[in-house]
Amino acid sequence: MTDCAALFAEHGTSAVSDALDRLGVDGGLPGLAARSSARRVAGPAFTVHLEPVAPGTPAPAADYIDDVPAGAVVVLANAGRDHCTVWGDILTEVALRHGVLGTVIDGVCRDLDAIRALDYPLWSLGSYMKSGKNRVRMVAAQVEVTVRGTAVAPGDLVVADASGVLVVPSGLLDDTVRELRDVLLVEQAVRDAAAAGVPLRAARREHGYNRPPLSGARP
Amino acid sequence: MTDCAALFAEHGTSAVSDALDRLGVDGGLPGLAARSSARRVAGPAFTVHLEPVAPGTPAPAADYIDDVPAGAVVVLANAGRDHCTVWGDILTEVALRHGVLGTVIDGVCRDLDAIRALDYPLWSLGSYMKSGKNRVRMVAAQVEVTVRGTAVAPGDLVVADASGVLVVPSGLLDDTVRELRDVLLVEQAVRDAAAAGVPLRAARREHGYNRPPLSGARP
Amino acid sequence: MTDCAALFAEHGTSAVSDALDRLGVDGGLPGLAARSSARRVAGPAFTVHLEPVAPGTPAPAADYIDDVPAGAVVVLANAGRDHCTVWGDILTEVALRHGVLGTVIDGVCRDLDAIRALDYPLWSLGSYMKSGKNRVRMVAAQVEVTVRGTAVAPGDLVVADASGVLVVPSGLLDDTVRELRDVLLVEQAVRDAAAAGVPLRAARREHGYNRPPLSGARP
Repeated sequence: MTDCAALFAEHGTSAVSDALDRLGVDGGLPGLAARSSARRVAGPAFTVHLEPVAPGTPAPAADYIDDVPAGAVVVLANAGRDHCTVWGDILTEVALRHGVLGTVIDGVCRDLDAIRALDYPLWSLGSYMKSGKNRVRMVAAQVEVTVRGTAVAPGDLVVADASGVLVVPSGLLDDTVRELRDVLLVEQAVRDAAAAGVPLRAARREHGYNRPPLSGARP
Repeated sequence: MTDCAALFAEHGTSAVSDALDRLGVDGGLPGLAARSSARRVAGPAFTVHLEPVAPGTPAPAADYIDDVPAGAVVVLANAGRDHCTVWGDILTEVALRHGVLGTVIDGVCRDLDAIRALDYPLWSLGSYMKSGKNRVRMVAAQVEVTVRGTAVAPGDLVVADASGVLVVPSGLLDDTVRELRDVLLVEQAVRDAAAAGVPLRAARREHGYNRPPLSGARP
Repeated sequence: MTDCAALFAEHGTSAVSDALDRLGVDGGLPGLAARSSARRVAGPAFTVHLEPVAPGTPAPAADYIDDVPAGAVVVLANAGRDHCTVWGDILTEVALRHGVLGTVIDGVCRDLDAIRALDYPLWSLGSYMKSGKNRVRMVAAQVEVTVRGTAVAPGDLVVADASGVLVVPSGLLDDTVRELRDVLLVEQAVRDAAAAGVPLRAARREHGYNRPPLSGARP
């Protein structure tokens, strides 16, 4: 797992996504943008499933951060809710002390000033300031969740950078690494040819940049 | 007022929002993001109500900036219109000379390069370049307006930072300060305990981080 | 053309938009934000019309970059599609080698880390990582396209900065320059008067800042 994570973090979401395309798998989580830190991260998902509560219902802050292992990426499945936040400065401080790599929110965070000052990597739909306390509650941690329409299971590898967030299913890590290595070879060959003055259309043709889609590939 | 503003600017929107939650008040202005400057601001709202005009109708640029006092935050209620702008470089230059702290737009600004070069704090839905002249006109200044669904009256205290924009009703400043001081004590106690190695769930429980909602609290 | 481009790049989208307003022309491309580089650009559009393909249909990467002349701005008309990307790091490297000024996408790019590291100017709806290969294909290059509801023809002058993206029809360059020069004179007179302590409302009145709209002007 560690080797995959390092490899995926080195090459970023685009190359890993191309590897997934060759497997007919779409791991993209659309709509999430980097809000803090320029660092790329890759690590196993620690998932948290949240749900709203009716107004006036007591709902404590979600208590899961003590259980997140070093090297993981927290994935907060909050169904795109942007009326309240589910991540802030105290969680960031604890996460950094525990070696957590970053946080992905299908929703919004707060304390973005502090999170940026700590250079903690975070992807979300945006930011706001209202607390999630008494607005949403944790249903469960480390269960399969749906984030931006894509299923994310505990241990799936999350890859995130300035382009967005991608998830590699844990059962496909070896296949993805194999395809990724070939994607990288082709890209480097095209890049080198173009740098040497070969027109890009010729470089792409020569090095097999275009491959037909898998039959049955998802759009 | 000045003391409140300094206190709110020091602690930012999250803590002030938690204080408002304890009072059952929702002062958040959703959808507004910081577009220029990393500075937090807090100051009384100077409100401007804008409305669209029919195509071909003469509508001069809104003339209010000469009346905005030092220390105020301009709040432009333009109902989310993004087809034309209601703030730009000349207004920014005048605002800075007058000691205006920043501008909040339920709509869009232009001249964002220049505004950033001047490090002038501004929150909006985004940016564009088309003039508001002959597209929108000022109905009135210093009247109660609705911004992102929330009422803002002249003199309400606007607090804004990287997380977004919050408004504290002028009649609730003392109550908000009282609650804020307790929010800060609890947060610091939780933070200190967590830094000392106490699990966050225990630190939260020990220091009463979770409080039930007020009955009748807004969602 | 070169002179227009330099003049428009110097003064930016706001002033050029005001000049177009005087001609009753709306060249704004709403919704596009600067994603990389703080540079303003102005140059003739090199247009690319893209269309989606049915899942499972082979569709090679669009091959046009070899044909884009130095000084041009690539305009990718992808109808706002955000499920796949139509610009990335290899295209950026080639574009920079060819002296292409920047790229405007009615859609999304990938490799934003690399594009920013190269300081290549790019405007788009956002970023993602999934390849456009086998998802969209080029219909034609250098044809009239529609971008964010506005027609863009090859050779129209694209002006883009932190506020957004504007297009000046190639047949209106001389008229736009003439109006722009007057816009700049009026703006400078207002700015100088305000800097000298004249209230802005008086400065605007004195220097004819407000002009009625053209009859028949578009909203």
